[in-house]
Amino acid sequence: MTHYIEQPPILVAVDCIIFGFDGQDMKQLLIKRGFDPEKNKWSLMGGFLQPHETLDEAANRVLKQLTGLEGVYMEQLHVFSDPNRDPAERTLSVAYFALIDIHQYEIQLSDDYHAEWFLLNKKPRLIFDHDDMVRMAQKQLRYRAAIHPILFELLPQRFTIPQLQSLYEGVYDTLFDNRNFTRKLMSTGLLIKQKEKDKSGSKKGAFYYKLNKRKYKANQDAFLNIVPKADKFI
Amino acid sequence: MTHYIEQPPILVAVDCIIFGFDGQDMKQLLIKRGFDPEKNKWSLMGGFLQPHETLDEAANRVLKQLTGLEGVYMEQLHVFSDPNRDPAERTLSVAYFALIDIHQYEIQLSDDYHAEWFLLNKKPRLIFDHDDMVRMAQKQLRYRAAIHPILFELLPQRFTIPQLQSLYEGVYDTLFDNRNFTRKLMSTGLLIKQKEKDKSGSKKGAFYYKLNKRKYKANQDAFLNIVPKADKFI
Repeated sequence: MTHYIEQPPILVAVDCIIFGFDGQDMKQLLIKRGFDPEKNKWSLMGGFLQPHETLDEAANRVLKQLTGLEGVYMEQLHVFSDPNRDPAERTLSVAYFALIDIHQYEIQLSDDYHAEWFLLNKKPRLIFDHDDMVRMAQKQLRYRAAIHPILFELLPQRFTIPQLQSLYEGVYDTLFDNRNFTRKLMSTGLLIKQKEKDKSGSKKGAFYYKLNKRKYKANQDAFLNIVPKADKFI
Repeated sequence: MTHYIEQPPILVAVDCIIFGFDGQDMKQLLIKRGFDPEKNKWSLMGGFLQPHETLDEAANRVLKQLTGLEGVYMEQLHVFSDPNRDPAERTLSVAYFALIDIHQYEIQLSDDYHAEWFLLNKKPRLIFDHDDMVRMAQKQLRYRAAIHPILFELLPQRFTIPQLQSLYEGVYDTLFDNRNFTRKLMSTGLLIKQKEKDKSGSKKGAFYYKLNKRKYKANQDAFLNIVPKADKFI
């Protein structure tokens, strides 16, 4: 095993990017770093990989230790490996990300932890290359949102157009023209109008809608129709 | 920096998955491993990350050292981190992958190196978790091929339907019914028939086609049309 002995050991960290939607706004969870360098600066939830755990396990452990959040399905995003990214030691960081329903995790995220939700466009500058990590996670989220119904998983079973628009505006960090957004959304034929209205937002109220899941699925398949049964492959 | 000193350093490797298309078949490049454990067994092109390089640089260096290939654009795929994946030492491996035109790199891949191309479904069993890496790369490739025109980049400017079918059959590791494949492909309206025929494969010959790139692009945008100018985001 001589070949191994000559190799340089490296520290490996994980950093967790948690996006959340509260029914109105897209937010991001951050903490103040607990150790030097950059102690007390805003940071992603991060920690070091330990000998007997996988990266997935490390990401879950770190997230739980620093925020109390448990059972969040996080996806491995990318390894950041610039030799100078951490001024203290050569440290690789594997970024993980998730998009969660903020209300669902409200209780776990108690005041015992000092994690805070920030609006995406009002978050503080983060340490090291954490802003790059967030940018990449946001890009990945936009990519996914454009081809998969993942955003609908953050909405209640029935939702209003203004809610859906807020979610898209949060993910894409841009304001959409109300009338155009509604028109385009309706032209997809993917939404089923319900009889009831949500009257919490305005006197006039907004009709509830449901996603036509069968049609959503069929639309995706149509796009993949060169390959027979493409969905079994991807 | 006490916090850093207590952390366990870990070895970090890169492994390169190179898929190739030679106009007829999808293949995969493999080498025989040069050191213990598992010396002389079939393996991906792998090596250890060095102190002053990024992972991208390591992947390019390793690929060049072991195969002679240079200037191949590889994409970071996933980090494999099972604590027991390498029996010699705790080693993380970052898998990279690329899909290349075999003819374009024929000269670089000289006999000085002992890399060999294998048909995807006739490759030998690989060491460690390399077969898992290949499976994940293939899945990623199928996913990409379904939503992006990356496969067309492997075909000449003008190509025949049998060529395109071979490429898809290679990527999806399945045989398509000729008539159905042709019919579905034509129904996309994405191919522009040329006047000339390729007569190298049969006496009757096969018409050449070109991709209607403008229409291909527009089709993708149509799918993303809930979001105005989605392409600028992803």
